[in-house]
Amino acid sequence: MQSDLETEEVLAAVDLGSNSFHMIIARLRDGQFQIMDRLREMVQLRAGLDKHNMLSDAAQKRAVACLERFGQRIRELPHSKVRIVGTNTLRNAENSRDFLRLARQALGHPIEIVTGEEEARLIYLGVARSLAFDNQRRLVMDIGGGSTEFIIGEGVSGQMRESLEMGCVSFTQQFFSDGHISAIQMHSAILAAAIRLRSIQRPYQRMGWVEAVGASGTIRCVADIVTAQGWTENGVITTTSLEKLIEALLTAGHQEKIDLQGLSDERKSVLPAGVAILKAAFDRLKIDRMVVSDGALREGLLYDLQGRIQHDDERDRTVQALIRRYQVDEAHARRVSEMAGQLFQQVAADWQLNQDEHLCKLQWAAQLHEVGLAISHYQYHKHAAYLVAHSDMPGFSREEQYALSAMMRGQRRSIPSKQINQLSEELQLPTLRLMVLLRLSLVFNRGRSEQTDTYVKLMVTEKGLKLTLPPDWLSDHPLTEADLKQEKHYLKSADIRLKIDT
Amino acid sequence: MQSDLETEEVLAAVDLGSNSFHMIIARLRDGQFQIMDRLREMVQLRAGLDKHNMLSDAAQKRAVACLERFGQRIRELPHSKVRIVGTNTLRNAENSRDFLRLARQALGHPIEIVTGEEEARLIYLGVARSLAFDNQRRLVMDIGGGSTEFIIGEGVSGQMRESLEMGCVSFTQQFFSDGHISAIQMHSAILAAAIRLRSIQRPYQRMGWVEAVGASGTIRCVADIVTAQGWTENGVITTTSLEKLIEALLTAGHQEKIDLQGLSDERKSVLPAGVAILKAAFDRLKIDRMVVSDGALREGLLYDLQGRIQHDDERDRTVQALIRRYQVDEAHARRVSEMAGQLFQQVAADWQLNQDEHLCKLQWAAQLHEVGLAISHYQYHKHAAYLVAHSDMPGFSREEQYALSAMMRGQRRSIPSKQINQLSEELQLPTLRLMVLLRLSLVFNRGRSEQTDTYVKLMVTEKGLKLTLPPDWLSDHPLTEADLKQEKHYLKSADIRLKIDT
Repeated sequence: MQSDLETEEVLAAVDLGSNSFHMIIARLRDGQFQIMDRLREMVQLRAGLDKHNMLSDAAQKRAVACLERFGQRIRELPHSKVRIVGTNTLRNAENSRDFLRLARQALGHPIEIVTGEEEARLIYLGVARSLAFDNQRRLVMDIGGGSTEFIIGEGVSGQMRESLEMGCVSFTQQFFSDGHISAIQMHSAILAAAIRLRSIQRPYQRMGWVEAVGASGTIRCVADIVTAQGWTENGVITTTSLEKLIEALLTAGHQEKIDLQGLSDERKSVLPAGVAILKAAFDRLKIDRMVVSDGALREGLLYDLQGRIQHDDERDRTVQALIRRYQVDEAHARRVSEMAGQLFQQVAADWQLNQDEHLCKLQWAAQLHEVGLAISHYQYHKHAAYLVAHSDMPGFSREEQYALSAMMRGQRRSIPSKQINQLSEELQLPTLRLMVLLRLSLVFNRGRSEQTDTYVKLMVTEKGLKLTLPPDWLSDHPLTEADLKQEKHYLKSADIRLKIDT
Repeated sequence: MQSDLETEEVLAAVDLGSNSFHMIIARLRDGQFQIMDRLREMVQLRAGLDKHNMLSDAAQKRAVACLERFGQRIRELPHSKVRIVGTNTLRNAENSRDFLRLARQALGHPIEIVTGEEEARLIYLGVARSLAFDNQRRLVMDIGGGSTEFIIGEGVSGQMRESLEMGCVSFTQQFFSDGHISAIQMHSAILAAAIRLRSIQRPYQRMGWVEAVGASGTIRCVADIVTAQGWTENGVITTTSLEKLIEALLTAGHQEKIDLQGLSDERKSVLPAGVAILKAAFDRLKIDRMVVSDGALREGLLYDLQGRIQHDDERDRTVQALIRRYQVDEAHARRVSEMAGQLFQQVAADWQLNQDEHLCKLQWAAQLHEVGLAISHYQYHKHAAYLVAHSDMPGFSREEQYALSAMMRGQRRSIPSKQINQLSEELQLPTLRLMVLLRLSLVFNRGRSEQTDTYVKLMVTEKGLKLTLPPDWLSDHPLTEADLKQEKHYLKSADIRLKIDT
């Protein structure tokens, strides 16, 4: 096993879900995955969240113990071959920062918290690739522990994505916490889910689909039960079979008394809530049958990782889409991006910046730096920071968005130390350094002209940077000289000495 | 005079500039203005701003004394016939809130702080209408006390608008504070202006113009001097005449020694800085001649006011532009707006909301409420609040934007008391009430369908509102019932009791 892990093509995906943690390890051969291992532990992280959104010590311990086991298997892989994401519970936990530090230690890799929208994108990707979707329109639904995702897509690309705040664990706490299953409880849970569904009901129905597909634990469990009970065939959930299941749950009256074929004990407690959510979706979205997929979030992560490795990075598409939506001056953005790339190459080794991880971030920042102009020229760097922090950005983790947002904020004027310090420790220094390279590129491109910039030499010194310009260049460019003087002053506040040589 | 002021058609505009305060009173006859009175006092408000951006007591006193004199003339006019705007200095003053309260008392009308962009729009409108511009492209420039505006437009509509942070008073403090006029000082001031101009240089030149037009004090004063000195003809400022003026200033060497025909004593101190800004603009934007206009910000205010009275409100166009840019679902926005209008009519009298001032605000809010969806569905009400607070919104004052932004923020979930309390006192209650009407319209439109809403009756009660619905309506609409229950709870936090009757 160890020898496999050392080969280049091994990829791993870990999903820290609100109900279960999952890990898949796969080998990439001729563009195809070969799954080598799957692990799943029902950690029920969401159940450890109190009403102040604090994650209990017990839940953290349960989670870390699980991740230590996972970590043994993937610790040796390079970061670029592993993606680990946290979802709803970690999005909501107020004290997630501390937990993430422990989790990172246990796993040996950084953990990304993804937005609901990104989670939905990855789920769709996992399902669509697993089932080899044709170009017909399909609805994919995934009931998680804390959120439920709904995606309509064609082929491998999702078109509408939504993550609603309802899940089998959170709804169990809210409606079935005492173990009883009464008609009133069931009705309340279905109504609460229906209210959340109302925001997507019309746009989704307007778009329409030819087939509804359910993914992961809860829905697969329902399909198993209704098939085993003989209420349906071939694992297809139908309206009638779902209603029979609800009747059976109400007849049982208590989770302890549920006696259904195909149901594992550990699923019993969260089944009624999951069924209520599924029923509300059938009602509101007018679904009458749902097939079930083996693919889910973790498979989506693997496919996404594969794309990045093969230079087909969803994040590039996202950046391009933002550039178009906010009508960025692309010629200027390209000049800034090119110059930033040149500066990067000159200092990458000394500043411990690598091509895979950091160069793309610098270039995204360069391409997006003027995105805030669409809102207003006044303080456009702050608007860019806002847009990048809050927009749905498929492919990006939240922390990647925050790092990019800090670079937007710090593209000019003062260095935003506060935003940088809010990043996880390992991201702080690289983000600051990339920001400095962006700033310097902007100083030389403020004229927005086609001038060549090959004369700018940049070197890392003991205390900062040395910039070398041809003789007389500065006196011929007094505006840039004034800007550089100002820039020296700003960089000093971040403890970087900028020396200018001619 | 008093009898004139009492007639319907009298309009007044007041401009609290960084250098001078201006007031115009005009009569509107057959769609034309007849100027009845002009007042100007050189208050030099900007000179009272210290390095912490605090406005000194002395400057506040000077300003309030002037406004009391102005106030005598306009106090009796209805608010809807008066526009009073503050510009750069009041935009920047940290303690403007206190000053604005005093100023409001002195004038008897509320004062709007406008953004640089809005200032630029109004200046262009004033100049274009005063000179009856044809459809050729023109550049308009206005050097104020704290900012300088550059606008390119055709006919009466500006296309590029920019307000740069440099003015004849702020640059005097920065470069000519000791009264001396040396070549180094002049050079530094021109360079500083050139740096600020660099951001607009290329886009402006790319757009181009057939004629450059200067507006207001500084530029008119320069035109008077170069004409009186015989350095040019017909009041046209040329490159050569401007250079001769700079030479003359350097030869004088001190503001006390400036001896030029056409120059009033009170202009002497701010002339060198103004000339430096003008020279930088000539250089960077490649201007070789500039004609001068009598129209300026205050005339723009009058024309804008005229438009509002004649139902041609710039603010409507702005809202439409935002709706298109952010691809709002217009059918849904229209339904919400219509229902909000119906609710408004039922409570307007009791809640002291009037058709002229408040109904349009409610409808703009209804039309814009989903603008934040373009950023993300997650917390879209907050994104809408951000966009409305920070976007350039021609025709809106900053406080109007903030009030609209508070309504965006409070369209759902908790009532944003903090944002409401940051508004000036007289705006707080109407904004809260309009927000409540918006929220109720949204509750009934959450299904996004074409249902008729005529059954909703709304009445003001002693402690809040009473909503009357047909019998059985609620039990037929359990989702709306659940929302109304939640809404009751939210409104209670704002001390409004919502009673629901069937």
